[in-house]
Amino acid sequence: MKAAIMNAPFEIEIVDLPLPDLREDEVLVKVMAVGICGSDLHYYEHGRIGRFVVEKPIILGHECAGMVKAVGSGVTRFKPGDRVAVEPGVTCGRCAFCKEGRYNLCPDVQFLATPPVDGAFVQYIAHREDFLYPIPDRLSYEAAALNEPFSVGIHAAKRAGLKPGQSVAIMGMGPVGLMAVVAAKASGAEKIIVADLEPIRLEAALKLGATQAVNIRDSDPVQAVRQATGGLGADVAFETAGNPKALQSALYAARRGGKLAIVGLPPQDEIPLNVPWIADNELDIFGVFRYANTYPQGISFLAAGIADVRPLITDRYSLDRTKEALERARTNKSGSLKVVVYPNGLLP
Amino acid sequence: MKAAIMNAPFEIEIVDLPLPDLREDEVLVKVMAVGICGSDLHYYEHGRIGRFVVEKPIILGHECAGMVKAVGSGVTRFKPGDRVAVEPGVTCGRCAFCKEGRYNLCPDVQFLATPPVDGAFVQYIAHREDFLYPIPDRLSYEAAALNEPFSVGIHAAKRAGLKPGQSVAIMGMGPVGLMAVVAAKASGAEKIIVADLEPIRLEAALKLGATQAVNIRDSDPVQAVRQATGGLGADVAFETAGNPKALQSALYAARRGGKLAIVGLPPQDEIPLNVPWIADNELDIFGVFRYANTYPQGISFLAAGIADVRPLITDRYSLDRTKEALERARTNKSGSLKVVVYPNGLLP
Amino acid sequence: MKAAIMNAPFEIEIVDLPLPDLREDEVLVKVMAVGICGSDLHYYEHGRIGRFVVEKPIILGHECAGMVKAVGSGVTRFKPGDRVAVEPGVTCGRCAFCKEGRYNLCPDVQFLATPPVDGAFVQYIAHREDFLYPIPDRLSYEAAALNEPFSVGIHAAKRAGLKPGQSVAIMGMGPVGLMAVVAAKASGAEKIIVADLEPIRLEAALKLGATQAVNIRDSDPVQAVRQATGGLGADVAFETAGNPKALQSALYAARRGGKLAIVGLPPQDEIPLNVPWIADNELDIFGVFRYANTYPQGISFLAAGIADVRPLITDRYSLDRTKEALERARTNKSGSLKVVVYPNGLLP
Amino acid sequence: MKAAIMNAPFEIEIVDLPLPDLREDEVLVKVMAVGICGSDLHYYEHGRIGRFVVEKPIILGHECAGMVKAVGSGVTRFKPGDRVAVEPGVTCGRCAFCKEGRYNLCPDVQFLATPPVDGAFVQYIAHREDFLYPIPDRLSYEAAALNEPFSVGIHAAKRAGLKPGQSVAIMGMGPVGLMAVVAAKASGAEKIIVADLEPIRLEAALKLGATQAVNIRDSDPVQAVRQATGGLGADVAFETAGNPKALQSALYAARRGGKLAIVGLPPQDEIPLNVPWIADNELDIFGVFRYANTYPQGISFLAAGIADVRPLITDRYSLDRTKEALERARTNKSGSLKVVVYPNGLLP
Repeated sequence: MKAAIMNAPFEIEIVDLPLPDLREDEVLVKVMAVGICGSDLHYYEHGRIGRFVVEKPIILGHECAGMVKAVGSGVTRFKPGDRVAVEPGVTCGRCAFCKEGRYNLCPDVQFLATPPVDGAFVQYIAHREDFLYPIPDRLSYEAAALNEPFSVGIHAAKRAGLKPGQSVAIMGMGPVGLMAVVAAKASGAEKIIVADLEPIRLEAALKLGATQAVNIRDSDPVQAVRQATGGLGADVAFETAGNPKALQSALYAARRGGKLAIVGLPPQDEIPLNVPWIADNELDIFGVFRYANTYPQGISFLAAGIADVRPLITDRYSLDRTKEALERARTNKSGSLKVVVYPNGLLP
Repeated sequence: MKAAIMNAPFEIEIVDLPLPDLREDEVLVKVMAVGICGSDLHYYEHGRIGRFVVEKPIILGHECAGMVKAVGSGVTRFKPGDRVAVEPGVTCGRCAFCKEGRYNLCPDVQFLATPPVDGAFVQYIAHREDFLYPIPDRLSYEAAALNEPFSVGIHAAKRAGLKPGQSVAIMGMGPVGLMAVVAAKASGAEKIIVADLEPIRLEAALKLGATQAVNIRDSDPVQAVRQATGGLGADVAFETAGNPKALQSALYAARRGGKLAIVGLPPQDEIPLNVPWIADNELDIFGVFRYANTYPQGISFLAAGIADVRPLITDRYSLDRTKEALERARTNKSGSLKVVVYPNGLLP
Repeated sequence: MKAAIMNAPFEIEIVDLPLPDLREDEVLVKVMAVGICGSDLHYYEHGRIGRFVVEKPIILGHECAGMVKAVGSGVTRFKPGDRVAVEPGVTCGRCAFCKEGRYNLCPDVQFLATPPVDGAFVQYIAHREDFLYPIPDRLSYEAAALNEPFSVGIHAAKRAGLKPGQSVAIMGMGPVGLMAVVAAKASGAEKIIVADLEPIRLEAALKLGATQAVNIRDSDPVQAVRQATGGLGADVAFETAGNPKALQSALYAARRGGKLAIVGLPPQDEIPLNVPWIADNELDIFGVFRYANTYPQGISFLAAGIADVRPLITDRYSLDRTKEALERARTNKSGSLKVVVYPNGLLP
Repeated sequence: MKAAIMNAPFEIEIVDLPLPDLREDEVLVKVMAVGICGSDLHYYEHGRIGRFVVEKPIILGHECAGMVKAVGSGVTRFKPGDRVAVEPGVTCGRCAFCKEGRYNLCPDVQFLATPPVDGAFVQYIAHREDFLYPIPDRLSYEAAALNEPFSVGIHAAKRAGLKPGQSVAIMGMGPVGLMAVVAAKASGAEKIIVADLEPIRLEAALKLGATQAVNIRDSDPVQAVRQATGGLGADVAFETAGNPKALQSALYAARRGGKLAIVGLPPQDEIPLNVPWIADNELDIFGVFRYANTYPQGISFLAAGIADVRPLITDRYSLDRTKEALERARTNKSGSLKVVVYPNGLLP
């Protein structure tokens, strides 16, 4: 099979690899669509993200869906031909975090495209059965691949206890921010006010369900949120941009007694935050790391047509052109939303 | 009646005032003991705390208990002679915060010794019936006055969801930190690791139930917490010192998936915090502002002897000497813990 | 002003009354629409509901909305001409229940049309300002009156922790059950399976958002729920009929680890429930009594057009014909859904 | 090795068996102490519990602790000689229940002494590493075995959200009820009122931390709870007796807005419960099935000496006399509390 392997930052090579071995509890998945995520770009540019360092060639890509090709001897829930979404982090199931239902914090997780684990820019992957989820025919592979960033949004909404009828402010309209709009809508949010500096993203947000879009080049997002909420501020604020200024805006956009979910990872460690504001207003702040127990819910929302996410996919590449795809994603911020690679041929 | 009134920062005058008028839902309380709080000192030194500015002479003091002297016509739960703890913030009961059970966030609260509301360095106060709580004979007035800082600790523990058997790290052992130790003990915490730089405070903490006390002049409190918890970190961390360094320590002392309650108000607004650490470890951070629904529980714990809090009271003054009491509290950090004023005569 | 007063069961008299006195915190509301509730019918037929006994003539009706006619001297949020929904239970704001945010449990609540408090089959009522809520022009008075039964549904959904994407089974499609369908939809429920025996109710449920309607004359609702959920059972079940059989069905319709909200009041006290089933499946069962903190959210959903509730109003009467309205509501179960009285003239 | 095997109800035979095979993730545990539980007696008497039927000879016993004898090739946390408590239910780690942190509801659990899985009345068992927990030297094997029923109490307290300072009523003082007293104490409960009909149990409860013990032959437990709580009722009630009358008492003992945990399994299915009482008082009722994530906490409480549980062990038998032990447990309700079997020799 063919794979797009990264030998070093900015160096992608198309190589031939044997099919992966299949353990008894694993499924061989023919990878049909793989979205490019900010973390893929970060490894591609820097060869590392924090404590995760690329020390040998690695296959990137972790937002994916595909078709079952073969199943291990112990697999009971799938058969060849089944269409599946792939939850990329395979956890141990035995540590205290796994047992308490917070498996996203499992220290022994094997996460696609996180060194030293290979990812999905490849024609076939072997994946444990319990991290695959059936998708109905009406859900396309590429939309199912978007269930991964959608899961981040769903998890953030759950962490922040987002309730029907609440107002939400989301700072940053990259793919995660955009899917957070869908998560907020699915949660029954009444007002969804979003901010970014790229018009294409703001337009996409409005189509997905945002009730107001603020271009931070023109307006102060905090003021906009206050105005839209009768001066109160948002019940829940999300920061998805990984930007210090966006984080501060999210903090000030939250209402007295409100909540803030920190989803984005800023490039530097220390961000100045207004601590008396946090204490005086009794804010709740929740760090968000990936997701847990979100896949079935996300698939169900997407399949039900909660929002039309297909227009988010602005660029499509075959596996041979993975390097072009990565370059497109990293250089065309004002024109591209989600770039997708199709390891087994472009989909119609 | 006599009152100790502050005409300007550092200027306390003993004056004669008429007894306060009594509304039908109010109780006239003979004030028996009033603890001096950091906020009293702050007004005494600076004439303001953030948005609260002393613009005319004010009576300070809000941690108090006393005896019922008279009751308004509509009062049903008290009669003269009853011993009571005074919850100092009287809320509207009608705003959205009050109706949702978070009355500490009520924008119309009348809080003793918060401008322009007078406080308790006076012989009698009129207070609404529903913010008075009966105390049993075995609970002294001065211990009942400590229920106010204790309430902050109880509220912080509730906000952070502190559960029996958990490990707790508390940074800062001023009176609020010390009472947070008692709150953690009452909540069934297994390990309570505390840090400060004053030996007298650390000794008091150990007597109140701390399982380990770290002098930050000698040791790194984060390392101490990690060691005491098998490398994991604390389930819950409290910052009570209002100190940037202490806050950062509290953040790093919390375990992956752990919680942090911010109780102390730092002098400056912007504190650099490690945001990737918060996100990556999925920390929950809770701002803590005063308390709500804590008084009966606090009284019950104190009356049951959960901890012997009397030794916390290191200095006792009559009302005439309120200025001396304030000076003592602000200048003797390494020798005094809680300084108490007795408006109706020193108690034995 | 005119009022429809009940002198004894089945005896309604139209009388002239003076306008009510207005306290400083009260608003005089011109009552525009009043829905008839099952409890009104119960008082009308039996003169009592459990511990609440009609001992002197009483005005019934508590689901209402109207227009501000005059305001007390201390009222700040309303002025004559404002359109308002009326939350019928005025609570003390000072007991432990009120302070903890569960004001629906306040023992001193004054609830419209609950003896000895008069209700809304009258041209004007005086009501405390903080239990009135502004409604936008696009929300009709009669739809705003429906916010009362809607609030029961919203409260039940909150009590049961209903989450987006979950499956819901609702037994009983009277007005409360129907509005619970809307509450479930607003909460992002994916599947809403309902059961009743009246075709008119089942049809209305489907229009409001139910995904499946089961006529219990034809099919077993438990089996239908199991089938619709892949054999699992519903994440959350509601019983709104006050019927022992419906309650047992709701219990068996809930999935392992699922939740059950008991909304309906059965006529007898003791209902046989399968207790080993409850324990073995770790069900959570929540009693639901009225509601708290639901009005703004409900108005916001209704105003946003979450569902078209106007068709629920099948019968309209002027105040003079209140007795006819009550008779219609109690005798035409298979033809009427919600019967509404208009004390100040029929609305177009 | 020797095992006490049940061939049919009332027939226990001591047989020789080969040592169990050890998988790579399993530990061979030398069983040192095994408590007899009500479910063991039920299988011994009836050969079944509900849907679990004994269809071939089975080894009973599941409350146990022991010493590590050997470890599988993949075991990392234990070595021979380690002292361990055994959590008896080994779960799949991969189903939705396991992933959400409710692994006690795992449909594929392998639970010691639940047909067809053999239990611990045997000298050695093979058990998966992640369901073994180290115990400190100061905790005896027999006390560690009590961590199993203690876990039920801890789980019930967690399910019911028991908070520090609350009042608790516990109906039924069998071993689970007695350990629930310890759990309530560990959770900071202020008042713990218990009821039973056996004086020996009530005395034990008082020694373990109950604040009041009611013999239901002499007094009405509901009235006693109401009196002890100023007429309010208990914040949390537990039913642990599996008795319809006790369940009704627990229901009526709970305060308005209070909670009820159903722990005991009654012999018949349908129990009449006062449903209007549940709805009108907005009670929360929680079914309790075994436990999850309780072992480390329980061990930590027991090791810290939260209560002296040794006196609960009233009868001690060697493995050869397992039948006598079972007979003692089932026939001596008024004299025995916990009967323990020691498969590798009586402990001092």
